[in-house]
Amino acid sequence: MPIELVTVGTELLLGFTVDTNSAWIGRALAATGLHVVRRTSVADTPEAIRDAVDAALTRTGFVLTTGGLGPTRDDITKKVVADLLGQPLQFDDAIWTALSARWAKLGRKLVESNRTQAMVPAGATVLLNQWGSAPGLWLDSPRGVVILLPGVPMEMMKLMEHEVLPRLTTRGDGHVIRSATVRTSGIGESVLAEQIGDLEDALAPLSLAYLPGVAGVDVRVTAWGMPAAEADARLTDATARLHATIGDHAWGDGDDDLAALVLEALRSRRQTLAVAESCTGGMLGARLTDVAGASAVFLGGVVTYADAAKDVLLGIPQQLIANHGAVSGEVAEAMVRGVAARLGADVAVSISGVAGPGGGSEEKPVGTVWLGFLSGGVVESARLQFSGGRGEVRARAVQAALFGLWRRVQAAQRRH
Amino acid sequence: MPIELVTVGTELLLGFTVDTNSAWIGRALAATGLHVVRRTSVADTPEAIRDAVDAALTRTGFVLTTGGLGPTRDDITKKVVADLLGQPLQFDDAIWTALSARWAKLGRKLVESNRTQAMVPAGATVLLNQWGSAPGLWLDSPRGVVILLPGVPMEMMKLMEHEVLPRLTTRGDGHVIRSATVRTSGIGESVLAEQIGDLEDALAPLSLAYLPGVAGVDVRVTAWGMPAAEADARLTDATARLHATIGDHAWGDGDDDLAALVLEALRSRRQTLAVAESCTGGMLGARLTDVAGASAVFLGGVVTYADAAKDVLLGIPQQLIANHGAVSGEVAEAMVRGVAARLGADVAVSISGVAGPGGGSEEKPVGTVWLGFLSGGVVESARLQFSGGRGEVRARAVQAALFGLWRRVQAAQRRH
Repeated sequence: MPIELVTVGTELLLGFTVDTNSAWIGRALAATGLHVVRRTSVADTPEAIRDAVDAALTRTGFVLTTGGLGPTRDDITKKVVADLLGQPLQFDDAIWTALSARWAKLGRKLVESNRTQAMVPAGATVLLNQWGSAPGLWLDSPRGVVILLPGVPMEMMKLMEHEVLPRLTTRGDGHVIRSATVRTSGIGESVLAEQIGDLEDALAPLSLAYLPGVAGVDVRVTAWGMPAAEADARLTDATARLHATIGDHAWGDGDDDLAALVLEALRSRRQTLAVAESCTGGMLGARLTDVAGASAVFLGGVVTYADAAKDVLLGIPQQLIANHGAVSGEVAEAMVRGVAARLGADVAVSISGVAGPGGGSEEKPVGTVWLGFLSGGVVESARLQFSGGRGEVRARAVQAALFGLWRRVQAAQRRH
Repeated sequence: MPIELVTVGTELLLGFTVDTNSAWIGRALAATGLHVVRRTSVADTPEAIRDAVDAALTRTGFVLTTGGLGPTRDDITKKVVADLLGQPLQFDDAIWTALSARWAKLGRKLVESNRTQAMVPAGATVLLNQWGSAPGLWLDSPRGVVILLPGVPMEMMKLMEHEVLPRLTTRGDGHVIRSATVRTSGIGESVLAEQIGDLEDALAPLSLAYLPGVAGVDVRVTAWGMPAAEADARLTDATARLHATIGDHAWGDGDDDLAALVLEALRSRRQTLAVAESCTGGMLGARLTDVAGASAVFLGGVVTYADAAKDVLLGIPQQLIANHGAVSGEVAEAMVRGVAARLGADVAVSISGVAGPGGGSEEKPVGTVWLGFLSGGVVESARLQFSGGRGEVRARAVQAALFGLWRRVQAAQRRH
């Protein structure tokens, strides 16, 4: 079931605003059984809007627009579409009352220009907007359906969720496009593809895509055009088989955050965590404390950026650094020992590396990172080599540290 | 001078990919004097691509496409446009040689499907792609110009910069749209608007926009459709007047990063910096060390997330915390004293706050943040109250800490 999207706003064409709405709407519609077949972005001029909506209606008879519903002179989408469909604007008391109440609550005064927001095309269904001032509109016409939504992302999403999607479930042909994602770390795209290779045929008609990023490679499996119940069942089965095939490298699904999973696993074992960072400068601590409730597990850490800080804060002898270099297994291990002892943590992780662009050598080129781990009384270290610029090396190092922690906590759980 | 953009890719319509290319291209073209008047996104089907490029050519005679130039079966943009313009594909030896050399260097083997990447429409100008495998193409035809670029953002940007924009400078009507941005912190949008109010008329025909974010409010000033030299002169003048009017709160321009400015100011004074973080968990250290060369100034820091860590790592007596609470001016000041003394830093900053969602009280609700500063031997603290969720409170706290540092370094420089 095709639908077209028309996004209105000169700021989109000039690149002042990145059109994130479209991707969100595309996913939401596809998961419901409607597929965006074309997206047109036009400036805030009557001709451009009229022309785009007109052509889209002719092609599909089903159009969703965003933007141009506000109270300013630029906001002309409603007027243009009403004219196009021959449904004259009429003053709507219910909208005016709701708007007045909302404004009074915010302590603001309605001005004359707000009256335009209470004008509604004859016969339109008003989609009341509790999250902003511009209501959405659903217009049924002999030429098809036009749905008008505001361009403010939060208001658009809330109206989609509460007003538009529920009305669409009976519109599609019942065939949805839905995806699931399995998240991996510590394994390259090509090795992963080799491991999964055989499964790829077995999962048909679902398709697989590999999405490499600094956090690892996400494997997305997609059901294209089948009943929702079948799609969901196939995706659940596929996800389970992917986990079984990939093994330990597959640490989560969908929007899972590795930092949150590590903290939760440690919390359930009543263990505490400390970190010692050098080249990442605090990024690992920042990732961990981004998780609400991290304080139940995370005690704190040190950022030993200068070599002297390693001595003062962690008691690492300058001689050890002189002998092996700050980026070495010996120093990474001394860092976890030092920070765990000082903070009394059960588990600790350290990162010391060459993030670049300077500081590389033949023996330790840019991208060389040593990780140290202390867990169950055992101290280990591992050398990794990352590619990419400074930001990428740092982000990959943080993810590798979290993944190393994750594997050790999983192994400890299995031993019990 | 109008141009249309056609972005090709089913993944764009399904929302698997957010179309960030379009915004970048829109800005780059507008700054050169060409304005994107419409953007159309279509799926990877011959009919959809052909229809979109055909209509865009009819309307403007100037089209730029992205996507669909890779070696897989989905990548059909080149073939479709060549057919549309009646310019048959021909094998191009130069592309094949360049591709072979690139592949050999990467240690990869060219396969048959790569040959399609060396096929070029008759009469096309090849825009050699040193950053990937798919070259860009510039097609001149009686119906107008079609520029084909790959969809990979880095490759698209490099080809725009090195191949497309230089060829466009003589194409526009000489009237450009260009912007400049003045970056502010520590001042709200409404206060800022009041301060700038009178200037707004004086700067006409330039327009002003306020862009609030966690880093502060950016003020964007835009020149709409005038000769490039006039636009640049007006923007330079406007930026200077905005700085003069806003004063200390305006710390930078354009893409300036406050962390980089702070580090550079300290470096020029040969001063060193240490940080002590609680609720931000390492974010401030991460921001500072994101700047290459930070090690000349930044010694390191501590993340004292648990109260016990404040004692162990910084020597803050538990009694002080018991008396005033961890989120207090007394503790924030003890944190900077402790970390500066331990690391021997000239300047230090500390952050202790209630990031939420839990942990708030009537006296110290979520969003309460104390900052501590040590600079020139003086220790100070400041209480701030931020709104928003956990992520926002933390990001605003980091920015406020950097801005506090910035003001103190500026003041110290003025005293000399």
